[in-house]
Amino acid sequence: MSSIPAFAPSTAAPLKDGDMLAAIDLGSNSFHMVVARYTLGQLRTVDRLRETVRLAEGLDGKGGLTLEVRQRAFECLARFGQRIRDIPPQRVRAVATNTVRALSAPQAFLVPAETALGHGIEIIAGREEARLVYLGVAHAQPPKKGNLRLVIDIGGGSTECIIGSGFDAIERESLQVGCVASTRRFFGNGKLTRKKWNEALVEVTAEFQQFAATYRALGWQEALGSSGTNKAIGEICAKMGLTKGAVTAQALPQVREQLLRAGRIEAIDLPGLSDERRPIIAGGVLVLEAAFAALGLERMAVSKAALREGVLHDMVGRSRDEDPRDASVAALMQRYGIDVDQALRVERTALHLFDQVATAWQLGPDERLMLGWAARLHEVGLVIAHSQYHVHGAYVLENSDIAGFSRQEQQYLAALVRTHRRKIPGNAFDALPDRLLASAQRSAALLRIAVLLHRGYDAREIPRLDAAAEGRSLAIALARRWLEPRALLRADLAGEPSLLAPLGIRLAFEQV
Amino acid sequence: MSSIPAFAPSTAAPLKDGDMLAAIDLGSNSFHMVVARYTLGQLRTVDRLRETVRLAEGLDGKGGLTLEVRQRAFECLARFGQRIRDIPPQRVRAVATNTVRALSAPQAFLVPAETALGHGIEIIAGREEARLVYLGVAHAQPPKKGNLRLVIDIGGGSTECIIGSGFDAIERESLQVGCVASTRRFFGNGKLTRKKWNEALVEVTAEFQQFAATYRALGWQEALGSSGTNKAIGEICAKMGLTKGAVTAQALPQVREQLLRAGRIEAIDLPGLSDERRPIIAGGVLVLEAAFAALGLERMAVSKAALREGVLHDMVGRSRDEDPRDASVAALMQRYGIDVDQALRVERTALHLFDQVATAWQLGPDERLMLGWAARLHEVGLVIAHSQYHVHGAYVLENSDIAGFSRQEQQYLAALVRTHRRKIPGNAFDALPDRLLASAQRSAALLRIAVLLHRGYDAREIPRLDAAAEGRSLAIALARRWLEPRALLRADLAGEPSLLAPLGIRLAFEQV
Repeated sequence: MSSIPAFAPSTAAPLKDGDMLAAIDLGSNSFHMVVARYTLGQLRTVDRLRETVRLAEGLDGKGGLTLEVRQRAFECLARFGQRIRDIPPQRVRAVATNTVRALSAPQAFLVPAETALGHGIEIIAGREEARLVYLGVAHAQPPKKGNLRLVIDIGGGSTECIIGSGFDAIERESLQVGCVASTRRFFGNGKLTRKKWNEALVEVTAEFQQFAATYRALGWQEALGSSGTNKAIGEICAKMGLTKGAVTAQALPQVREQLLRAGRIEAIDLPGLSDERRPIIAGGVLVLEAAFAALGLERMAVSKAALREGVLHDMVGRSRDEDPRDASVAALMQRYGIDVDQALRVERTALHLFDQVATAWQLGPDERLMLGWAARLHEVGLVIAHSQYHVHGAYVLENSDIAGFSRQEQQYLAALVRTHRRKIPGNAFDALPDRLLASAQRSAALLRIAVLLHRGYDAREIPRLDAAAEGRSLAIALARRWLEPRALLRADLAGEPSLLAPLGIRLAFEQV
Repeated sequence: MSSIPAFAPSTAAPLKDGDMLAAIDLGSNSFHMVVARYTLGQLRTVDRLRETVRLAEGLDGKGGLTLEVRQRAFECLARFGQRIRDIPPQRVRAVATNTVRALSAPQAFLVPAETALGHGIEIIAGREEARLVYLGVAHAQPPKKGNLRLVIDIGGGSTECIIGSGFDAIERESLQVGCVASTRRFFGNGKLTRKKWNEALVEVTAEFQQFAATYRALGWQEALGSSGTNKAIGEICAKMGLTKGAVTAQALPQVREQLLRAGRIEAIDLPGLSDERRPIIAGGVLVLEAAFAALGLERMAVSKAALREGVLHDMVGRSRDEDPRDASVAALMQRYGIDVDQALRVERTALHLFDQVATAWQLGPDERLMLGWAARLHEVGLVIAHSQYHVHGAYVLENSDIAGFSRQEQQYLAALVRTHRRKIPGNAFDALPDRLLASAQRSAALLRIAVLLHRGYDAREIPRLDAAAEGRSLAIALARRWLEPRALLRADLAGEPSLLAPLGIRLAFEQV
């Protein structure tokens, strides 16, 4: 598994002309893969794969997935894996969305899934999914300068609503309603009645009402729908002769009426609808009708791009010193009033240690980025209280909606912040996948030492700080004459080796 | 138990000339009580009681208290209880500090303690203790206008350090080092050696170093020490002819040297030291020496006032429309960017409901205050993420350092915010003492309904909202013509009775 890169590509690896990239989206309805070539600063799609895995169908109501659906997913991923075998792993990013988010033990699915794909898979939160969808749509159809755009993406398990300007999402929401989940929930018995439809519409509209007022106050000049459901409904509208491919407030009720006339899901007969989509179109039309009602939509055009294109463009951004995670970390530092000088001092020292042991400990540029961000954010919990602030900081990082980061990346940051001082609890790294465990523990040790060396908030340079690692051993050397007058620091250093033991790291200090 | 007031006195009960007040402090070394008469806008002390209970000695290392010490505490509280029998309960406030904070199941101690005292007992956090200590000292010896003052209070289990100006604490810290705990920890075998002393000094100084740089950067014009340890050391300095009652950087080492010469705790012979204080003076001198070293102190005067006087003056402030909790709630709303209009709308509606059912449900002015604050803060968790924001909000309120609130008051607010939307978990009110349970659950129901009625963030008035309660039943009436066009709200209201069932409340809606 050591060939699976720990994180998505980082700024440390700029793209060159001709480089290939691939994005994989493990959606609740379909799995998608898009392969593109980076040419003259642009992405050119060279291949697309799509398989209707219906992952959401496999949810067993107890937080697990049925064996049949798991098998279907692994077989699809094995095929996808074959296609990416020749693309450098740091140019591939695979993301999982709503259904995997809903699993009670996602690792039980992810570990074999990663093996089948031959690549790490990241879980992304709903609002991060919303950001990436917007990015994909914005690159496919660049909005007019100054225009605000609403994007609605109806997936299998969740629906994302975004208002953005240019390439930036301004408002991002993710709702637990999707075409597969809604069809199953409201029309699970296969019957389509007007009474049931109206009840379901009230319920789904209520979900959109949570943010509709905010969205309508901000407003937009154009609305776009993305993903399979919206594309299918647009095609139906066109085939019914109602529009030229868009969805409108006039056309949508006619599609709904034709649906209800069928009476049963298996009898649905809509022009242009594929057999594959028939079992889930009712939930899709329902969600879209609710969105139109809550947001007061008149017209929505359809976009061909979606999440996977967003993931590709996010990789390009990361490679260009436009890593959105940098901006997110800066925003968190500001929102929570972090002492920037201290944070950067700790970061500098942590990275100085990192650079000396990176080769020996097989830590790469992605781990370096994560350590730097953890250092910048290690005091974030102080906003809540000084007492146990490392615990509060981990809570904030684990639960916040941080643009650009996957769930695992947030958990990685949270684990480093949780363990940066005091005793390290036995379960501090439990949320992380096994492939990230060693690098997280090693980085945690480096962050602890950096924090400890700067505990005095002293702006003066540390004159000498050597680090060497070998296997489980870490040796740190400090100048004797610098250490001599620092009794507190010496006491702290003396206690650190036993505190680091739970990480499986043997720490030795030397005075030189 | 219904005569035990749920919370401390509120602004609803202004003080009159001649009113008696009492404050009780369940410290880790001694229990104190002070009784005062409110005369011409001033407090005049009319009685003091002090008993050396040594609560901290009873800690059994497993989060419990030994039977012997529990018994000692209950007997003392029974005596105190006799003294306050004629004082109106809303004029009495009893607070518990470090040792009770350290118990794994504080209720197991508090319930019989409250029965013995005949009054509710609040646990206060270390930094709240610091604020109250400062308030007590500032009222006893008003600082010069514009002067900054450092106050150090060495208790049995914790030490509080405050920098303040006038009556306001600016910096507040609480350390887990006190005279009883430090003596036990470093000199538990009864021996006093220079080697052990020096090691202990490094460790305790390190605790002060955590904030020493911040404090020294802010600076102060005068330093005062409060509580028994500081008073005793000041008296020793005077009796040794070193000062006139203050503690100085020159005198303190001489006290320490005389301590060390004794070699054993039981042989300590310091002029002016009471037999009662001999067993714990070593830890006290150690902590004070560490404070002098870390903060670079030259001279510290001694104050006669301490926590209990601060509690008395806090009661006066609360009765005068100067409730510090109001300011704290306002500060939280600002720090976390709460939508003030929405918060005040919800508050107004919640209190409108409250006022109609208060008599039937035996809810008093203190519960009214708490409900108002919970309404103002119910969206505080949005700063972390929209998803599960009620959970995040409860986390923030439970873990933040909020001036003026006791632990139980914070837990009460947290429980209301935790349960203000979505399902109510079975353990949501577990942290609350039994005497607060019914009022918390009833207030939670009112807050839920208020939040639900304002879910649309609509600024328009609700034309009619009647509430009536009887036992476990709550009936709410809304105008039919107002409700008619609000399908979402009707759906929400229809679901609410079953959601409220875990509170043991039967909710019925009526359209009139």
